[in-house]
Amino acid sequence: MSDSRELSAELAADAASDASETSAAPAFDTAVLKFNADGLIPAVVQDVESLQVLMLGWMDAEAVRRSATSGRATYWSRSRQEYWRKGDTSGHIQEVVAMHYDCDADTILLTVKQTGAACHTGSRSCFDDRVIPVTTQAQETQAGEK
Amino acid sequence: MSDSRELSAELAADAASDASETSAAPAFDTAVLKFNADGLIPAVVQDVESLQVLMLGWMDAEAVRRSATSGRATYWSRSRQEYWRKGDTSGHIQEVVAMHYDCDADTILLTVKQTGAACHTGSRSCFDDRVIPVTTQAQETQAGEK
Repeated sequence: MSDSRELSAELAADAASDASETSAAPAFDTAVLKFNADGLIPAVVQDVESLQVLMLGWMDAEAVRRSATSGRATYWSRSRQEYWRKGDTSGHIQEVVAMHYDCDADTILLTVKQTGAACHTGSRSCFDDRVIPVTTQAQETQAGEK
Repeated sequence: MSDSRELSAELAADAASDASETSAAPAFDTAVLKFNADGLIPAVVQDVESLQVLMLGWMDAEAVRRSATSGRATYWSRSRQEYWRKGDTSGHIQEVVAMHYDCDADTILLTVKQTGAACHTGSRSCFDDRVIPVTTQAQETQAGEK
């Protein structure tokens, strides 16, 4: 944690505080965030009601800005190379409730109110049903005790 | 918060059910997963009890295998260029409860039992306190009504 990062966090907190006092859009400098070589940052998307992790999307600085100011989650589609405002085609929109970034400033956590399915397959979450089997020693012992 | 508690219970039940079916390590071919140009895949880490998103780590195929078979969350440290078994230094271990991958097979969701703080700053989650201010039309209207 460099001093500059702490300062950045303080500035962000100040901005959040300012936002509650005024109706004007609060300033957030996306330069605080660390984007990868493609200019993108991963955004973890969590359902505000169930707390289920719905998906992971990618954002460039403009997608961060649009998500924070439009109220609608907006990503950068790496496959289509264009902005993708979630739900414009499917109707399964995501209303942005809150946005946080992590200690390294290289990941965003997006809290959303999800309409319908988050996944293009029709599942509520993109992580439904795709299991990597986990075998811990404790589980092996338990099974061995039968 | 009954929804989140139910989801938590379901995750735990799923994990227990998976474990009770066999004592042998189940085979999972990591070739199913899509790793990036650096051979890495992002892993979203969620607390099995609170459902809080704790952090995002990166795994190569070997880290996926170690996490799935050792019971301890293991990542690839991009800064140190070495495997990083969470908690070996801090004591803040993550016991792997379940692992899922998403519809594009390019993101992992790791469900863990977290000991202590997940974040190196001492915070429970890496996303604590770092806010990107969100201004939705609804909020603007609300502020305007004051």
